[in-house]
Amino acid sequence: MARPSVREQIVDAASEQFHRHGYNACGVKLITDSAGVPKGSFYNHFPSKEDLALEVMARYAASRRFEELSAATPAPLERLRRNFEFLAGEITGYGYERGCMFGNFTTEAADHSAAIGDGVRQGFADWTTAVAAVLREAQSDGTLAATHDADVLALFVVNAWEGAIVGARAAKDGSSFAAFFHVVFDSLLT
Amino acid sequence: MARPSVREQIVDAASEQFHRHGYNACGVKLITDSAGVPKGSFYNHFPSKEDLALEVMARYAASRRFEELSAATPAPLERLRRNFEFLAGEITGYGYERGCMFGNFTTEAADHSAAIGDGVRQGFADWTTAVAAVLREAQSDGTLAATHDADVLALFVVNAWEGAIVGARAAKDGSSFAAFFHVVFDSLLT
Repeated sequence: MARPSVREQIVDAASEQFHRHGYNACGVKLITDSAGVPKGSFYNHFPSKEDLALEVMARYAASRRFEELSAATPAPLERLRRNFEFLAGEITGYGYERGCMFGNFTTEAADHSAAIGDGVRQGFADWTTAVAAVLREAQSDGTLAATHDADVLALFVVNAWEGAIVGARAAKDGSSFAAFFHVVFDSLLT
Repeated sequence: MARPSVREQIVDAASEQFHRHGYNACGVKLITDSAGVPKGSFYNHFPSKEDLALEVMARYAASRRFEELSAATPAPLERLRRNFEFLAGEITGYGYERGCMFGNFTTEAADHSAAIGDGVRQGFADWTTAVAAVLREAQSDGTLAATHDADVLALFVVNAWEGAIVGARAAKDGSSFAAFFHVVFDSLLT
């Protein structure tokens, strides 16, 4: 039976390599070399690179601190802002490289892999649902006007965030994140 | 001397293949096969795949109808809306596949190729400048409140559009575009 630790090494290495280079630029050999395991061991653990990508995406989703969105404190819009600040800080820390794994897998692979397409659709749907719940809470407590349907607004804000990442990676500076926080939190969500 | 038409065939084929499969999934051989020209002819025309990508991006930029943004009619915000409707229509016509070449090249290659990084930075900067000019015009004629700096708002809107594409490609439906038009044109740009 395969040792569990080899599987973990592969997932760790793939998380790093997919994030850094993208899905199509990473072959199985790059991943197993980076993991320090024989290429042949890969298929003891994953039927395909696609299956590994789904595992990497699930682990990435779990690291987004989305559980903080439904915490009791601070106030709803402050929780949302802090979550985006966490996400922004990560990308800023990478020098405006790497971006969001959901967005990257969508751009590179959602048109070509039904499994990855399902993965990103579900990933974005879960995230958008969590953001919509925060917005509804803010609408209930009166800190957010009920001008917009919370689901539509949540979809717009999540997408605007993904686009701010594209802008940040293109310009390699913080102007797109600054514009996002200013327009979303000082104007749209008021 | 190389025939100009071979160069055009290569650019045509690369425009299609890069858009469909992405930059990293397209090798030179896929492009020359698709163009129906010998692989060896590629390097008579382009020093590298990277140089070809810059040519493809320039051609893509020229096809975005950005010149309509600075036309005399219709009114500024209507011009902006129509341009985004054109962009949305193209992606909708592809079944929510392919996306925006600027965004795709940013996600796949801007971290790894200085030349492509420069290309996407300039592409987004030119586009954002054109959108900012429209917004300033709308602020001048009173159809848009002067609440936000036009440059910041333009950067936000262009990024929000890029993110709406990510959302559309993930969900493979029109909900992200609908949310974009609703929030941007019925609320933010009023």
